[in-house]
Amino acid sequence: MSTPSTNRQWRLAHRPQGQVSDSDFEMADEPTPEPDAGEALVRVDYLSMDPTIRGWLERDTYLPKIEQGAVIRSLGVGQVVASRSDRYAEGDLVSGMTGWQEWTIADDDERRMQVLPDGTDPLDAVGLFGPTGLAAYFGLLEVGRPTDGETVLVSGAAGATGSVAGQIAKHTGCRVVGTAGSDDKCRTVEQDYGFDACINYRTEKLAPRLRELCPDGVDVFFDNVGGDVLEAALSNLALHARIVICGAISQYDGAPPKGPRNYTNLIVSRARMEGFLIFDHARRYPEAIADLGRWAAEGVIHHQVDVVEGFEQVPAAFRRLFSGDKRGKNAVRLS
Amino acid sequence: MSTPSTNRQWRLAHRPQGQVSDSDFEMADEPTPEPDAGEALVRVDYLSMDPTIRGWLERDTYLPKIEQGAVIRSLGVGQVVASRSDRYAEGDLVSGMTGWQEWTIADDDERRMQVLPDGTDPLDAVGLFGPTGLAAYFGLLEVGRPTDGETVLVSGAAGATGSVAGQIAKHTGCRVVGTAGSDDKCRTVEQDYGFDACINYRTEKLAPRLRELCPDGVDVFFDNVGGDVLEAALSNLALHARIVICGAISQYDGAPPKGPRNYTNLIVSRARMEGFLIFDHARRYPEAIADLGRWAAEGVIHHQVDVVEGFEQVPAAFRRLFSGDKRGKNAVRLS
Repeated sequence: MSTPSTNRQWRLAHRPQGQVSDSDFEMADEPTPEPDAGEALVRVDYLSMDPTIRGWLERDTYLPKIEQGAVIRSLGVGQVVASRSDRYAEGDLVSGMTGWQEWTIADDDERRMQVLPDGTDPLDAVGLFGPTGLAAYFGLLEVGRPTDGETVLVSGAAGATGSVAGQIAKHTGCRVVGTAGSDDKCRTVEQDYGFDACINYRTEKLAPRLRELCPDGVDVFFDNVGGDVLEAALSNLALHARIVICGAISQYDGAPPKGPRNYTNLIVSRARMEGFLIFDHARRYPEAIADLGRWAAEGVIHHQVDVVEGFEQVPAAFRRLFSGDKRGKNAVRLS
Repeated sequence: MSTPSTNRQWRLAHRPQGQVSDSDFEMADEPTPEPDAGEALVRVDYLSMDPTIRGWLERDTYLPKIEQGAVIRSLGVGQVVASRSDRYAEGDLVSGMTGWQEWTIADDDERRMQVLPDGTDPLDAVGLFGPTGLAAYFGLLEVGRPTDGETVLVSGAAGATGSVAGQIAKHTGCRVVGTAGSDDKCRTVEQDYGFDACINYRTEKLAPRLRELCPDGVDVFFDNVGGDVLEAALSNLALHARIVICGAISQYDGAPPKGPRNYTNLIVSRARMEGFLIFDHARRYPEAIADLGRWAAEGVIHHQVDVVEGFEQVPAAFRRLFSGDKRGKNAVRLS
């Protein structure tokens, strides 16, 4: 085995103030790490671009904030190129906390790095079986718990998580309405992902359109966006509705956060609003991956990964998550 | 039986814009109603002053808004003085939707009017067994579901609902912290209601004080207030916390509503925020009344009704709910 002697990394240069910019990151080189006993060396092939990293850059959340000067924490998919551990064999495809770097060390902590089943497509690993697909699966089925015949609303419906959540809801027998930021995305949501309808929140009046499309109210709202969409949904809830707070991408980058002014509609509709993290469901990942894989094979779920090439492009690819100019899962291919 | 020929009523003159004022109501006389077959005539003895009426004055909520010119919808307690129904006997103490008037007709709809057990104290009927006591009971036990050893935060802790919710939580084995608007109220909350601590939100810094008093975070937040207290609680949640949205009195009257800007902490803490109405638990009222009555008799729950005398005083007593200048349950005695 021959590995380059240099490991390129993206590190945190400045904590972003408002919108994230390229200069918040700096590229650095360090020697490629050597695995100790019980460890393996992993070549990072894909980095998963996830909005949640925006929180890690700025403040303590469910994980401590990233230290200034440290490698950006990130999920990625790679291949074991050398192993001194029983858990890893050379050639294994792995998924886990690689960070924004070309090489990483996998240790015995199975919460940091998992070996994927033989034959897994790395693009499925980064998307459908990655954090966004798992968030759709557990958020919808465990928190939202829709039942046959209910109405499900999904914001960010053209996105990596929303598109999968909506398709699982359809498969459950629900009427599914999405929101997205362009007519073109709405077409994808309706035609490729099979939603019953999609609202372009930039050109249509959200609240009246939602009332029209969901005349009996929304039973489950799977929210990736926050802001106006959340308020519109709160104004149009069915009794005993469940709002799944998966993310709030409209609130992450820049603008001061807005709370839903009409949250007391939770009283009127005897409804609940609940947050979750996939990590709490880690024991059930194999079950989720099996279901998602079967649904993809059966054509129940269509899934799209938008791949950018090259380690240099990582900050730009990350910034694009917040521009609205994207669809499906975003990832960067390093090698 | 002799009843006066005139029934005084308070009707809605104008929908309030901003803070409610006396001129939003007008007093009117109509002939005292006569019960038809299947009905009873009720003399209204106490009117229950409830913040939720503020919503009914302005907009459709879980009930349609009150029509302009109509009698103000309200809960009250009274006595049957004439009956042409098998459900009611002369002398029965009843509780239900009396409206702001001196006389009312009870019909067969048991959701509008219930006969109370013999020997019930009318002040218990209006307070502890009335909507505020029942909201404390069902909101805390069915929505919040605290368990022994957990930390419970209650806003509006000196109020009719908060004081009872906190005492039930204490009885469940929880550590209980309250918030209230004066040192005097905080003393009542700690000394009479037995909370472990009470924060004066007007003079103390809410967020740091809350962190100090609840170092492991809040497991259950029973919220009657909204606004700053809700944001402070959201910033200090324990994992899997439950926020019970009982009311939002800081948001009802006047100021434009504020949403909790940090609601995405529900994700960080895998927590939920849930609204409820006591009406959904109507079948279990007898069980709740039995528990609350036993706890009151055993001294587990102390309960206070602040009674204003005179039908003329109803609008002023109602306005006082939003002034912060009150404690315990507020009621008006009519006769």
